[in-house]
Amino acid sequence: METALHVDTVSLDEKTKELVAIDQTKLPGELVLLRLSDKQEIYDAIKRLSIRGAPAIGVAAAIGLYVCACRLSAGNAELFRQEVHDIKTYLASARPTAVNLAWALERMESEMLRQKGDAEALLESLHREACRIRDEDIAVCRRLGENGLKLIRNGSRILTHCNAGQLATVRYGTALAPIYVGREQGMQFSVYCDETRPLLQGARLSAYEMMACGADTTVLCDNMVSSLLENDPVDAVFVGCDRVAACGDVANKIGTSGVAKIAKDSGIPFYVFAPTSTIDMRTPDGKSIVIEQRDPEEVAETWYKTRMTPKGVKIYNPAFDVTKAEYITAIVTEYGIAYPPYDVSLREIFKEKEEHPIAF
Amino acid sequence: METALHVDTVSLDEKTKELVAIDQTKLPGELVLLRLSDKQEIYDAIKRLSIRGAPAIGVAAAIGLYVCACRLSAGNAELFRQEVHDIKTYLASARPTAVNLAWALERMESEMLRQKGDAEALLESLHREACRIRDEDIAVCRRLGENGLKLIRNGSRILTHCNAGQLATVRYGTALAPIYVGREQGMQFSVYCDETRPLLQGARLSAYEMMACGADTTVLCDNMVSSLLENDPVDAVFVGCDRVAACGDVANKIGTSGVAKIAKDSGIPFYVFAPTSTIDMRTPDGKSIVIEQRDPEEVAETWYKTRMTPKGVKIYNPAFDVTKAEYITAIVTEYGIAYPPYDVSLREIFKEKEEHPIAF
Repeated sequence: METALHVDTVSLDEKTKELVAIDQTKLPGELVLLRLSDKQEIYDAIKRLSIRGAPAIGVAAAIGLYVCACRLSAGNAELFRQEVHDIKTYLASARPTAVNLAWALERMESEMLRQKGDAEALLESLHREACRIRDEDIAVCRRLGENGLKLIRNGSRILTHCNAGQLATVRYGTALAPIYVGREQGMQFSVYCDETRPLLQGARLSAYEMMACGADTTVLCDNMVSSLLENDPVDAVFVGCDRVAACGDVANKIGTSGVAKIAKDSGIPFYVFAPTSTIDMRTPDGKSIVIEQRDPEEVAETWYKTRMTPKGVKIYNPAFDVTKAEYITAIVTEYGIAYPPYDVSLREIFKEKEEHPIAF
Repeated sequence: METALHVDTVSLDEKTKELVAIDQTKLPGELVLLRLSDKQEIYDAIKRLSIRGAPAIGVAAAIGLYVCACRLSAGNAELFRQEVHDIKTYLASARPTAVNLAWALERMESEMLRQKGDAEALLESLHREACRIRDEDIAVCRRLGENGLKLIRNGSRILTHCNAGQLATVRYGTALAPIYVGREQGMQFSVYCDETRPLLQGARLSAYEMMACGADTTVLCDNMVSSLLENDPVDAVFVGCDRVAACGDVANKIGTSGVAKIAKDSGIPFYVFAPTSTIDMRTPDGKSIVIEQRDPEEVAETWYKTRMTPKGVKIYNPAFDVTKAEYITAIVTEYGIAYPPYDVSLREIFKEKEEHPIAF
């Protein structure tokens, strides 16, 4: 099917056996497609953030491992397994802290190791698993969109932070999936995108894909949320997440927790979109989640013409923050919507997943 | 006296009869002094924001009018008055919405019109009034610093938004004045500066002057306030203001109200520093304050290497926001500290001002 961008964020060209990916460093200027088939190229594309967004990275790595395997010289199964293992290890090192990257590559190798037969059969197992990982991502996002659409109606005004849209996944996204699904049904929405300093994923990526999707799109600086909600309130805030703890605390892009507090103060519902793969019932609460501090240069200079902070000044630059469960109206998953108390409702979501798994 | 920057933001060189001003467009890169004596140069410096900050603009205009008047060809008093009036009108048009600019220039002309005698006497009256406007600014900021210092102690950690420091005034600033006064007494502080998108006054200016002043200085993106206050809380938030309404609502740089809400949620005191000249008892509340919407390009492109939002996207870019009185712990003025209810306490401040005016 066609998406608003007319192309999936990452895909497999079955004819040329190439990984095709939108180069996100070129956005919002132009939509450029990368065609990759070499492990070095794929590693570089992930490293320099041409391919970004946790789910999209996972799918890209899976397809990437397969297209590299297609180019191995025919050999015996044992040699093939070893070479695939080496490529996997190399690709996984592109962004060592990206959980989806390691997870997708592990799934690929495990599937291959379960497979009997010659190198050709092993290659076919890699193809099957890469397609499954991609299809699961699409199906989960579609369901998030259908579930989230129940929370809004035609004409709704939505505020979002960072990029949890198609560009972070293969298609639809997580927090922005309801916009895509609603647009397919002819609905119209106004979407407000926080610019999301320091890397401006909201201004560059969410705004780009929401305009492409036909939503009435407005960018605002992160510090304008309070002003917007007082003067021209939205109907709901939709955000994605990196990890959900068992109590419902949510780790997401830096700035999320501030938006949640301001939304609560204004009585505006705040929804987190979380594929069940991001819900970690073994993490009791947000305090247990270690937050990465990132390079000060992201704040001081990156994206800027001239240095914007004095030389030598200290810079506080955490990548994520924790939004406590008390600020979250509901957590939308592909298996339904969880309301507080989350320790109960999230368990019910997993029960539903076990009893009625989505068929891919 | 020496300031941390070793020079006042704007000053009069009595020997050369020049307006001397820090070129704020060159910060944080380098400290460059402009020496101005021509009306066109002074107009341009204000227009292009080399001279910025409401109180600093007012003082610069007053000194500027005087130095231009020094260069008028000796003539009769009537001709002198007319020529000064024309320069005044021209300088006032540099930033038509800047209240302090018009206010200072009006004061200058009124003082001249009260003066009897020849052109030389009129010129002397302009000199006297320009020095008085400058000295008042310094004295008011000093008192704000002394009063604000009562709210903190050695080692305190302060969060500030935008630039309400020396660079916005002649010396000391408003919200940052307690840091300067405390530093003179050998106290140490940690100051956290919100970068303050879109024009980054916090990252560029507050961080620069706080480092120069010897404070332990950290810059953070605006969306990191919630994370900072949860993980490494400050003792207080200090901000300046553009206008205070009679009920205590405060208009200040966009983003201020969000910081106030997040601070309240964390139980951290939020103090507004307001010279009584910014308290407008005829404005009943924040709803009566019209907020200027600024050029979308400030968000989309200014300061950036490459365009950071998609072409044609709408941009929400208000210059200021209103912080409701309920989020404000106290309002610090040069005549003391006002606590809620503000309709009562602000009247007491003005009573004190009437009965015991500061002598300049």
